[in-house]
Amino acid sequence: MLNFDLYTPARIVFGRGTQQKIGELLKPHAKKVLLHYGGGSIKKSGLYDQVVASLKEAGIAFVELGGVKPNPRLSLAREGIALCKQEGVDLILAVGGGSTIDSAKAIAMGVYHEGDVWEIYDQGLAIGKALPVAIILTIPAAGSESSGDTVISNEETQRKYGYGSPHLRPLISIMNPELFFTLPDNQIANGVADMMSHVFERYFTNTTHVDLTDALCEATLNTIIANAPRLLENPQDYDAWAEIGFAGTVAHNGLVGMGREQDWACHDMEHELSAIYDVAHGAGLAVLTPAWMTYVYKDNIDMFAQFAVRVMGVTKGLRDKEELVKEGIDRLRRFYRRMGLPQTLSELGIDGSNLETMAKRATRVAYGPEKPLGGLKKLKWQDVLNIYRLCK
Amino acid sequence: MLNFDLYTPARIVFGRGTQQKIGELLKPHAKKVLLHYGGGSIKKSGLYDQVVASLKEAGIAFVELGGVKPNPRLSLAREGIALCKQEGVDLILAVGGGSTIDSAKAIAMGVYHEGDVWEIYDQGLAIGKALPVAIILTIPAAGSESSGDTVISNEETQRKYGYGSPHLRPLISIMNPELFFTLPDNQIANGVADMMSHVFERYFTNTTHVDLTDALCEATLNTIIANAPRLLENPQDYDAWAEIGFAGTVAHNGLVGMGREQDWACHDMEHELSAIYDVAHGAGLAVLTPAWMTYVYKDNIDMFAQFAVRVMGVTKGLRDKEELVKEGIDRLRRFYRRMGLPQTLSELGIDGSNLETMAKRATRVAYGPEKPLGGLKKLKWQDVLNIYRLCK
Repeated sequence: MLNFDLYTPARIVFGRGTQQKIGELLKPHAKKVLLHYGGGSIKKSGLYDQVVASLKEAGIAFVELGGVKPNPRLSLAREGIALCKQEGVDLILAVGGGSTIDSAKAIAMGVYHEGDVWEIYDQGLAIGKALPVAIILTIPAAGSESSGDTVISNEETQRKYGYGSPHLRPLISIMNPELFFTLPDNQIANGVADMMSHVFERYFTNTTHVDLTDALCEATLNTIIANAPRLLENPQDYDAWAEIGFAGTVAHNGLVGMGREQDWACHDMEHELSAIYDVAHGAGLAVLTPAWMTYVYKDNIDMFAQFAVRVMGVTKGLRDKEELVKEGIDRLRRFYRRMGLPQTLSELGIDGSNLETMAKRATRVAYGPEKPLGGLKKLKWQDVLNIYRLCK
Repeated sequence: MLNFDLYTPARIVFGRGTQQKIGELLKPHAKKVLLHYGGGSIKKSGLYDQVVASLKEAGIAFVELGGVKPNPRLSLAREGIALCKQEGVDLILAVGGGSTIDSAKAIAMGVYHEGDVWEIYDQGLAIGKALPVAIILTIPAAGSESSGDTVISNEETQRKYGYGSPHLRPLISIMNPELFFTLPDNQIANGVADMMSHVFERYFTNTTHVDLTDALCEATLNTIIANAPRLLENPQDYDAWAEIGFAGTVAHNGLVGMGREQDWACHDMEHELSAIYDVAHGAGLAVLTPAWMTYVYKDNIDMFAQFAVRVMGVTKGLRDKEELVKEGIDRLRRFYRRMGLPQTLSELGIDGSNLETMAKRATRVAYGPEKPLGGLKKLKWQDVLNIYRLCK
């Protein structure tokens, strides 16, 4: 086990009706909030009205900024920063999924940054503070409701960069599984693929003597795999959504990766797909992950054998690790397929024309010195290209 | 899954050498600290000198109060409260195990309470604030390094009461497994029994649809059971201590019990043992827990069957739940025995003379209206007496 620093301050207020407490929960922390959201779905569902009523009842003033899109845009964050400065906002309330939350975090740190907020992402600048962010989650997937991470797309340069800081950990996140009932099948599936990947990126490691986090990762993955298919049968299954929602938070608040060298190659490879083709993050991960596993498993076959047995439930082939691992990866593919997720880049509408460009961008060779991806196996740009090609 | 409110703000700084960072870590939070500890062991080991050097280097002033004993005493907490007020202390640094931390928390809230701090425990008063508490953990067991809980013994009235508040969540906890290397076997075993009980109290429930927390509880228990015996073979096994230390925190920071009706009957029954006989908390729990299981399992045999299979690894008897459960409980007894823990009240030096008194105190019948214990099965004083008698 490696030394670690675990910090999970985001308070999770979970369950039926909890969104109606938002005003009361924020009252000790805010006088004027920026209400940040995506399209019209929260207005159609009535959630917007509930939130506004609760804020008003608590005597909290607000300004609002809607229009967040999937793969949230730098330009909107810039607009939010200007608005917060102008209006003297002291807390940002994000009502939405990972994109809205990530956009809120960009605004939260941008308010205190003298230059353009993109510099923080681009140069990995340290930040000293950020406005507090509170959340009402409507899509469980990104885990951004408890993490200190944000990902933003710069539409001018087609770059999509992530950034993380303890100052970006949310203050309070409301999670009511009932708010997930209206999500369409493809968003359910993309969310599930995303949260599974958050565990995979931490789980697959060469670090040994990590029994507890091995088991916590497996517990989270097993819960997701058991409950996700129930949602496609009945998207109003409260119990299944409760498991998936809670698992999405545990997957990405940091706990299950403590003391482990982490990987994150699949996430880095996927960011290039979304940056150029604007594909859904989870769908991209579902395509890339089995290919990545196939490409790297020989570098740590024991790790992948453990995955096959403890996560995918393979028992046939215990005397033959290769067989075990291949069956494990194949079961993961079948699970993704059952969830209706794509299996190939062409299903995502991506042909072979940009593979080399994306491989060089992912490893930063396109911009300067190469930064190999991953932890379990270090991937150079040619490796990344090989993995993209396995997905065709 | 029940609605829940998860709040785990304590930052865990984990690993080799981390105690030497204490000054740097506290610098943004404190000008003058109360250094609170137990006996002379931290002076003998050199830890005291390291802490003092680190505080001095960071320019943090301190006053000190040693002398915390197992089952920490109200009188010492009162002394600490007076000292903090007099000296203008702004943070309490507890260097020790659960007793020292619990004593520190009593002081932390007592400083802001107008009356005597015992009122807060006795009447369950709500507190509005407390001094921040930081920790260097030397005994992994109580989980107090991440919880908002404290237990104090009133030596005048022989009562031992617990209290909890979000304001008592520690600010920062340093956990370096190397600091555990000198613990004697009985403290290792008692600590292990305590942290396992923290999971059991949350795990055994009638609440259904709690897949994730079921699995997180099992992950934590499996990790403890696999690693604890290694410590008796080699108390300097860093890897095993790392698992046990981390598991002790996860067992009691709240996460694994979210959304579940919890039990806590064994803890309540044990507090009466320690209040009168001053036995080690973990040893008392090791005696009571299998007896409690035997007494209550028929009320939810499916829960105990799951425990037998997933925690104790029983596979024989899958077609006969009674057999399965009995074997599960028996394996737990054998595990405790392997750890050198007591099996009976008489091994703890407790005869039958106070059993009824303790049963009536545990259920508060001795003081007023009866408050049955437990969640999975509600226990009246006669039930508690029956369980005590099963332990003779």
